[in-house]
Amino acid sequence: MKTRITELFGIEHPIVQGGMQWVGRAELVSAVANGGGLGFITALTQPSPEDLTKEIARTREMTDKPFGVNLTILPTLKPVPYQEYAQAIADSGVKIVETAGRSPEPFMPTFKTVGIKVIHKCTSVRHSVKAEAVGCDAVSVDGFECAGHPGEDDIPGLILLPATADKVTIPFVASGGFGDARGLVAALALGADGINMGSRFMATLEAPIHDNVKEAMVAADERNTELMYRTLRNTARVFKNQVAGKVLEIEREKGDDIKIEDLAQYVSGQRGKIVFEDGNIDHGIWSAGMVVGLINDIPSCADLISRIVREAERIIAHRLAGLVNPTGQAA
Amino acid sequence: MKTRITELFGIEHPIVQGGMQWVGRAELVSAVANGGGLGFITALTQPSPEDLTKEIARTREMTDKPFGVNLTILPTLKPVPYQEYAQAIADSGVKIVETAGRSPEPFMPTFKTVGIKVIHKCTSVRHSVKAEAVGCDAVSVDGFECAGHPGEDDIPGLILLPATADKVTIPFVASGGFGDARGLVAALALGADGINMGSRFMATLEAPIHDNVKEAMVAADERNTELMYRTLRNTARVFKNQVAGKVLEIEREKGDDIKIEDLAQYVSGQRGKIVFEDGNIDHGIWSAGMVVGLINDIPSCADLISRIVREAERIIAHRLAGLVNPTGQAA
Repeated sequence: MKTRITELFGIEHPIVQGGMQWVGRAELVSAVANGGGLGFITALTQPSPEDLTKEIARTREMTDKPFGVNLTILPTLKPVPYQEYAQAIADSGVKIVETAGRSPEPFMPTFKTVGIKVIHKCTSVRHSVKAEAVGCDAVSVDGFECAGHPGEDDIPGLILLPATADKVTIPFVASGGFGDARGLVAALALGADGINMGSRFMATLEAPIHDNVKEAMVAADERNTELMYRTLRNTARVFKNQVAGKVLEIEREKGDDIKIEDLAQYVSGQRGKIVFEDGNIDHGIWSAGMVVGLINDIPSCADLISRIVREAERIIAHRLAGLVNPTGQAA
Repeated sequence: MKTRITELFGIEHPIVQGGMQWVGRAELVSAVANGGGLGFITALTQPSPEDLTKEIARTREMTDKPFGVNLTILPTLKPVPYQEYAQAIADSGVKIVETAGRSPEPFMPTFKTVGIKVIHKCTSVRHSVKAEAVGCDAVSVDGFECAGHPGEDDIPGLILLPATADKVTIPFVASGGFGDARGLVAALALGADGINMGSRFMATLEAPIHDNVKEAMVAADERNTELMYRTLRNTARVFKNQVAGKVLEIEREKGDDIKIEDLAQYVSGQRGKIVFEDGNIDHGIWSAGMVVGLINDIPSCADLISRIVREAERIIAHRLAGLVNPTGQAA
């Protein structure tokens, strides 16, 4: 399947595995690349820019296809040497970067000097317009359904994607709520040039997280996520578990008077790491999108990608073309 | 365009104008029917079952195409003679009913005795499964994006539609967030057999509401709605205005201790009626869906329906088929 996104990034299929803290490592990223999609190493999963350099080299040993690095720019308790991470990416020879969080503008010169293509994750139309204005090559448009931070506008993909298509000219992938062929075709119909999948790629053989987590995602339905940190205006969609329940209890109690310190016991830089390592799904807070309701198996990344593309082509050529012209052939 | 919904209801296009209090009157319903879609008179907009009988007769004078009646079953302060409304519908000869709110089960014998087809509006997978079990012929699956009552699960169409497709066998239309051809194709890809549009049909020439309301919808973007009555667990998506702001202020103040009486000054059976009549958009509370962000004009119903179908066919036969096979022809 060819779209503006496959052309821009030189990949076979318009399916992206965007940055996921503690998950976006060489094993997953190379498996996605070898399956014809576009995977991103998560820079801040690595403890230092030097470790990131090593992780990029390790990924290169596992695939000769294109892959990228995600750099998520967020306010943190401990300062993060973002510019050093950005420079490590530029020096590594990787040619695709996904940015998320704050505007990538301060890092664009570092990336553009070496010909890196930048895709920025946006949760609103106005942020996509801004990303285009500062020179991003593409955007990843993240709806209310997504794991992690959906922003505070609560606009789902059905609305956010066509609204974005009406306002930006650069290519964009649809993110948040995507996990199968039906979603890919819907995204393409709504004006996107491909899809980004996070949670769906967590439930794959190669995702470097504990099997219990993958199995919990398969067992979950679409109501097994919840939004927390809304009182802090830093909303995050996470898997519904005991810890998330405690955080929400505190948020309800404190209301608008909440301080981040009130949640210190439950929030740390480690968040999902401990769960992904020990497999106790109630052991910490971990991000998961509503698409868990559509995840029913744990395939390899290559099988997942080829299944989605094959079924999407069938939906287009048979189901949809058949509705337009009941003989089953497109006009 | 032929789908299971066009076949079931004997209509030309898979586009439905579902029940809207104070809006679903003969003018709009007949215009939708004459445009090849399926319109529903809203039973409770009529002050008595006798008035409903007259409104059905008035609609029949304006179209010879199929149309239906919506019966919304909700807890109300003043008792509503639901069974008498149901009997009036059965006696009228109308053969399609849309139910919403509580389960239609108590009214099914009245409808089924005279061969009426029933489509029930559902905001969750479990409600759709129940509707199928009690003998409904179809469901209208209403996502988080919708105007009015989205339920309390907050599941958008991108997730709710395929999750429903996996669990029910009867045909269903996608509702909430639909207003253009892109949405129709997305809905069909996600497994639905057509779309229901509410807000989009409010901004048409024939909708019997004040022009100021239509123009406010055209001017609005996707962030111009908000959810109220969440504290009462009777969430409603409404147009963001001064009155809605006051209600939300009270809800924030009272929190879980709120009583319906605290909102008595702002909530009444009249709700949107006064706004739709006098055109002062801050004069009361009125429902609007997120799709206001995709509404840019005020066409006739026939023009709107034919534009959506024509563009949807083009998206399928050209954009989508072209992505699968870059020569531009579907396989």
